[in-house]
Amino acid sequence: MKLWDKGYTTENIVDRYTVGNDRQLDLKLAKHDVRGNIAHAVMLHKIGILDTQELDDILKALQTIDTQIENGDFIIEEQFEDVHSKIEFELVQQIGEAGKKIHTARSRNDQVLVDLHLYVKEEIHNIKSLIQNLFDTLLKLAEQHKNVLMPGYTHMQVAMPSSFGLWFSAYAESLIDDMIMLNAALKVADQNPLGSAAGYGTSFPINRSMTTELLGFETMKYNVVAAQMSRGKLEKTIGYALASVAGTLSKLSADICLFMSQNFNFVGFPKELTTGSSIMPHKQNPDVFELMRAHSNKIQNLPVELSFITNNLTTGYHRDFQLLKESLMNGIDQTKDNLEVCDFMLQHISINDKLLENPIYDYLYSVEEVNKLVMNGMTFRDAYQKLGKEIMDGKFSPSKEVNHVHEGSIGNLCLEEIKLKMKSEN
Amino acid sequence: MKLWDKGYTTENIVDRYTVGNDRQLDLKLAKHDVRGNIAHAVMLHKIGILDTQELDDILKALQTIDTQIENGDFIIEEQFEDVHSKIEFELVQQIGEAGKKIHTARSRNDQVLVDLHLYVKEEIHNIKSLIQNLFDTLLKLAEQHKNVLMPGYTHMQVAMPSSFGLWFSAYAESLIDDMIMLNAALKVADQNPLGSAAGYGTSFPINRSMTTELLGFETMKYNVVAAQMSRGKLEKTIGYALASVAGTLSKLSADICLFMSQNFNFVGFPKELTTGSSIMPHKQNPDVFELMRAHSNKIQNLPVELSFITNNLTTGYHRDFQLLKESLMNGIDQTKDNLEVCDFMLQHISINDKLLENPIYDYLYSVEEVNKLVMNGMTFRDAYQKLGKEIMDGKFSPSKEVNHVHEGSIGNLCLEEIKLKMKSEN
Amino acid sequence: MKLWDKGYTTENIVDRYTVGNDRQLDLKLAKHDVRGNIAHAVMLHKIGILDTQELDDILKALQTIDTQIENGDFIIEEQFEDVHSKIEFELVQQIGEAGKKIHTARSRNDQVLVDLHLYVKEEIHNIKSLIQNLFDTLLKLAEQHKNVLMPGYTHMQVAMPSSFGLWFSAYAESLIDDMIMLNAALKVADQNPLGSAAGYGTSFPINRSMTTELLGFETMKYNVVAAQMSRGKLEKTIGYALASVAGTLSKLSADICLFMSQNFNFVGFPKELTTGSSIMPHKQNPDVFELMRAHSNKIQNLPVELSFITNNLTTGYHRDFQLLKESLMNGIDQTKDNLEVCDFMLQHISINDKLLENPIYDYLYSVEEVNKLVMNGMTFRDAYQKLGKEIMDGKFSPSKEVNHVHEGSIGNLCLEEIKLKMKSEN
Amino acid sequence: MKLWDKGYTTENIVDRYTVGNDRQLDLKLAKHDVRGNIAHAVMLHKIGILDTQELDDILKALQTIDTQIENGDFIIEEQFEDVHSKIEFELVQQIGEAGKKIHTARSRNDQVLVDLHLYVKEEIHNIKSLIQNLFDTLLKLAEQHKNVLMPGYTHMQVAMPSSFGLWFSAYAESLIDDMIMLNAALKVADQNPLGSAAGYGTSFPINRSMTTELLGFETMKYNVVAAQMSRGKLEKTIGYALASVAGTLSKLSADICLFMSQNFNFVGFPKELTTGSSIMPHKQNPDVFELMRAHSNKIQNLPVELSFITNNLTTGYHRDFQLLKESLMNGIDQTKDNLEVCDFMLQHISINDKLLENPIYDYLYSVEEVNKLVMNGMTFRDAYQKLGKEIMDGKFSPSKEVNHVHEGSIGNLCLEEIKLKMKSEN
Repeated sequence: MKLWDKGYTTENIVDRYTVGNDRQLDLKLAKHDVRGNIAHAVMLHKIGILDTQELDDILKALQTIDTQIENGDFIIEEQFEDVHSKIEFELVQQIGEAGKKIHTARSRNDQVLVDLHLYVKEEIHNIKSLIQNLFDTLLKLAEQHKNVLMPGYTHMQVAMPSSFGLWFSAYAESLIDDMIMLNAALKVADQNPLGSAAGYGTSFPINRSMTTELLGFETMKYNVVAAQMSRGKLEKTIGYALASVAGTLSKLSADICLFMSQNFNFVGFPKELTTGSSIMPHKQNPDVFELMRAHSNKIQNLPVELSFITNNLTTGYHRDFQLLKESLMNGIDQTKDNLEVCDFMLQHISINDKLLENPIYDYLYSVEEVNKLVMNGMTFRDAYQKLGKEIMDGKFSPSKEVNHVHEGSIGNLCLEEIKLKMKSEN
Repeated sequence: MKLWDKGYTTENIVDRYTVGNDRQLDLKLAKHDVRGNIAHAVMLHKIGILDTQELDDILKALQTIDTQIENGDFIIEEQFEDVHSKIEFELVQQIGEAGKKIHTARSRNDQVLVDLHLYVKEEIHNIKSLIQNLFDTLLKLAEQHKNVLMPGYTHMQVAMPSSFGLWFSAYAESLIDDMIMLNAALKVADQNPLGSAAGYGTSFPINRSMTTELLGFETMKYNVVAAQMSRGKLEKTIGYALASVAGTLSKLSADICLFMSQNFNFVGFPKELTTGSSIMPHKQNPDVFELMRAHSNKIQNLPVELSFITNNLTTGYHRDFQLLKESLMNGIDQTKDNLEVCDFMLQHISINDKLLENPIYDYLYSVEEVNKLVMNGMTFRDAYQKLGKEIMDGKFSPSKEVNHVHEGSIGNLCLEEIKLKMKSEN
Repeated sequence: MKLWDKGYTTENIVDRYTVGNDRQLDLKLAKHDVRGNIAHAVMLHKIGILDTQELDDILKALQTIDTQIENGDFIIEEQFEDVHSKIEFELVQQIGEAGKKIHTARSRNDQVLVDLHLYVKEEIHNIKSLIQNLFDTLLKLAEQHKNVLMPGYTHMQVAMPSSFGLWFSAYAESLIDDMIMLNAALKVADQNPLGSAAGYGTSFPINRSMTTELLGFETMKYNVVAAQMSRGKLEKTIGYALASVAGTLSKLSADICLFMSQNFNFVGFPKELTTGSSIMPHKQNPDVFELMRAHSNKIQNLPVELSFITNNLTTGYHRDFQLLKESLMNGIDQTKDNLEVCDFMLQHISINDKLLENPIYDYLYSVEEVNKLVMNGMTFRDAYQKLGKEIMDGKFSPSKEVNHVHEGSIGNLCLEEIKLKMKSEN
Repeated sequence: MKLWDKGYTTENIVDRYTVGNDRQLDLKLAKHDVRGNIAHAVMLHKIGILDTQELDDILKALQTIDTQIENGDFIIEEQFEDVHSKIEFELVQQIGEAGKKIHTARSRNDQVLVDLHLYVKEEIHNIKSLIQNLFDTLLKLAEQHKNVLMPGYTHMQVAMPSSFGLWFSAYAESLIDDMIMLNAALKVADQNPLGSAAGYGTSFPINRSMTTELLGFETMKYNVVAAQMSRGKLEKTIGYALASVAGTLSKLSADICLFMSQNFNFVGFPKELTTGSSIMPHKQNPDVFELMRAHSNKIQNLPVELSFITNNLTTGYHRDFQLLKESLMNGIDQTKDNLEVCDFMLQHISINDKLLENPIYDYLYSVEEVNKLVMNGMTFRDAYQKLGKEIMDGKFSPSKEVNHVHEGSIGNLCLEEIKLKMKSEN
């Protein structure tokens, strides 16, 4: 059954090509579609389109469907092209003519819009919560290893003393920036599009403030054309936020893959969490973090994919938008998976606390030596020239003491301040 | 002169390749570099590295440089590789040894970071202000043409009645989403990175709270490694916000290019603002909007370009980051140019108020007719089937009356509500 | 069973995350893996690693597996992480110890490489054949409608006379460029990587020339590190070729979506091949071409996705590469689907042969009029000025005769020459 | 002066915005524009539009301009919007009325197309030649260091023995794939678009075979609409080839940046070719290769940028295409610069020939040991299990002998075969 059935059927090839994997993807929207239907029905009753009996019937039937969904019993059969057709069909099956009235003053376009907005809001909350977990784990690790030094690199060259505490908490604080992006995306998503119908509103005297409140939206997207234009724009906005998170996970994964190399040997994982080689028996490969890096990099590309699909399309709905669903949903699911797996793995990370005995790291202390000269009155540039010469002449032999005290430095990680900053975004 | 001069010079080819067009790009950072220098000097005095005379000398010299910059007299000569070397050189020229002390407890890395953060904050404010102007123009046009109907399309097919009021104000409301993204980017930028030095802090007992306040940052990026990691991440974040704005301008431009086609003829511009053809004397081409679309599409790709450059780089500074400057600055400048030109052009737009007399637009009213039947008691699906049959049989003849009253519809644009929503983001 | 099993098992979460959907994707590689196994086994026998009995057993067992694959009976159960483990397991099951020897002088890395090279070669041939079909259909349509004029646009403005013959055959000739790209990709794929083992060769005295010939490769990728580096590079190269095809289909689809608009009404399709609206009974939407455009645009983005995943990875295998498989395979499958559906649809296209009666198209002839003046001795620039003035004064009234005779013009489509050019690429 | 001047001038803002930096970019096209003019004029004479005197005058004047260009004296002043207007103006200045006739049967659209096709052909030849140089240098280095072992990595883990000979020549052979892509791009570019005029041909009886031969094109793009559609498609095709080259350079650069780290210390460069740090006197940073990686990554993104700008534009010229020029030309120039600088740097590379004394590399030999057991009759899987246990028990102590003899392995680099393969692409 298609909502737009006019008595003839399109060829199978067209059906297959146009429906694609919508039936499967739409399962994620089902519960949100029910919520949208409930709000719309209550509003239709309020403005006199549905009588009280019809509303009761509809709400009861929707409740039944919702229970099916919760129990995992809801499926979209081959004869339906999407979740909206399926649910409307179910309503008519259960309560007859009244079920047909639910589509009054509405279009599939704004149904999809509402479902997506609700879905996205829920998922952003889920992602924020997973980020908070990862953040907590990172801060715990930072606290735990705050006194263990490690080399800091610039240009991949041994540069200055860093610490595991600094390294772990850097990623924690970096996640706050991602949280800011997610909150922006949430704000963009938190505007009710219901009532835009096919993108140009409706002649029925619907009450959009009412559905905005019923659906728990902070505000509405007033202009119905703007509401329609949020298709594509919403997805891209979420895409930017997911890409931001992915950028952080990608970098962390790249660090770990490097640091597990025998040439670094900074961190390790229990052998149960690494994988082996089919021909080299000594390997303990960081596959999880390689795949996390790869998945994250794919997600960093998500905004372009979404833009590419929607780009240069003029105002008004185009079927092209349908393709956004899969990209967006995969991006969201993978982000959640990445965050969970990352948190799980980090809970098992071990660190090498004997690193700095290796003489290749002696140069780490060159700046410290320069600074001591400066503290004793030499200008920075002169001290720098002096040490540079000592190093070139092979005469450099540092004391390995590090005394950093300022905010955010090795000796003063400001973990509480970072926690507070995160709290204000959550 | 290079900050890291050790008495030998690199080959010319290396110089040319590594410096690139930095001297030119850095001019945009000069005034921010002076601000960073001032804050750093005041703080160095506070912690006893500079005595009062030294501070006074430094501040006076920086003031002189700042005036040069303001007057457009500041240049970075071939012998300097960037703005930081140039300014330090000037200080030493003017005040001798004290000038050399300004680099104490600092690295070029955090100088660039501070300059970029300050630069970006200022430019986001500029862009927000230009968006507000465009928003105002769009709302004015919406108010002015709120009663002029135009066809609304879905799938590029004539669909339902829309109006110029709806079309103009849709873009206005859509800009609010971009403003939300810009505000998120601003928040990310509003964290002081100064004090991270080469990315791992310093053994000098610097006071980062003090420079945070002096530089007008809302907070600091505490963790010095996180501060360093903001290189790349900051640019990408701005990139997302610019891409968001660009998406809106691209769509608006695409609409206008289509609507200026003789096949639509919805809008026009004075011939002084269009361009001609070298062989077709009748053409008045929408070149400005074609180029605005193209520029906007290029900017939509900016986040990928920035990600591509920084991707899979592990913790710590890499020279790769240098290349971000040009992409970011071009993106910012072009965004400002696009917004200004768009606003200018729209102030001269004319609209076609006789559009709906064309019979190809009669179908616009089909839904209205369906709705009337529904209002009179027929179910939506049945009414839809009835009209569908009439249309297929060529018997459809609509009354051309449109009566939309709900929030955000043709008859109720909610311009005041949209204005208020924008205000809360500005 | 894992090839690298050392007696302990990784946690479930790691298993799930690292294996991903490899089992399903690898089904596409199964028959190629068998081919690779056969060639490797024959070579191992040649160099004395397998005796004749062992070879016979292996070949017989592989034949059984191959038949399973052909019949669709081959599956990769949960206990195997990929097709390679599964096939090796089957061998051991069927023939005992001899089965274990097949992995001698080989690694999963070069097995995947070989499978991918063979798979890609086959699929490029499939795609080339589908392009040839579409090309033939386009040329047939061009021949059929060569005398029907249509407006040609520049800047979306009515510009000069074109024809349906010109339009259809333009896409045909454009496909030749895509064929050139596919042939380049084919050449890159036609280099045997087998023998690179884990990416650094093997101490066994394998005969790579022999497997190159047995597997039907044109040449080999000699350097084993280069062979390993083809992972990622091969995929990107195919990605470029697929993106090239997609660019052509995207543009054709965009044309058709526009040309089906009531504002153009240039082409149409039987109603069985278009789709309707849930609220507008008059609509016949071009969903197939909207989705073809969207799918094609997603594929145009494929090279970036592949680059993003592999970028900045240093020499040597990284697990990140695994993620390329899904993107590549989806891109290939979708390209084939797009080409088939496009060909199917075009076989049902109808065109409007009364277009040019509409007066908005009169300006089409302005250049013709300019040219006539030039033919009669006026300079082009002067003639252009004269006509421009007539048009601005509303005095332009063209004769609607078009007489283009040069190669590739409306009156001389050169379809045979285009056919020949295509032939030389196929 | 504008080619389409109709007696009024567009506003300054429109002028500035639409012309952009075309005047500067067009200088690269000037000599090709002259070539196109010459061929067009000769053909116009042949078909009787120009008399012999006019042709002589035009050719003489074009010769003068060509000399100016060669001497670097050719400039495009503010009053011209592009190279085409400028050259036509010069013609009229020098020879009067006859100069105006050169635009007969032509449009700026096909002038740009011809110029771009000629420009691109020339630049691809330049790039191929630079690749050949780099290839030669890499092979020379491979020959020179073929006996120096280095560790081979998989998953960044020490894996198996490799050699500098293998590493250098891997990049050489990899460049052959890029050459294949460049040749495909060259073939696509080698089709004459002249005669397409504004994209729909002309009523003048032009002889396109003649200009094809005069301009040295292999064939012509017959269909005039296809010729017009090559705008955008040509650029993307070149973009794919440039991205392919960039992928190779990016990976090589990433390797070098890693291998210069103190944790690897595989390769080095004279200190004149590295750069220092503003605060760390011991650093010798690989800035050239970091920037080469960054530039290459930016170029890998070029095809998306080009696609983004052109995407979803329907048939016919759009001004959006103008923006492609800058992206394309920058991509070409940067590719040439990267190739030259890379070649220059590699000529100064030094390698560490004492690497394998470090015990972290002992595991390199584990597979060798497995293979020895296999050679002596154990199955691979059993040998693998045995070695795995020895390693886990800390009992692994390899003999450090490597004996690889097969084609493309450490002991048999096949440099001659690789040279021959390259030759067949050049």
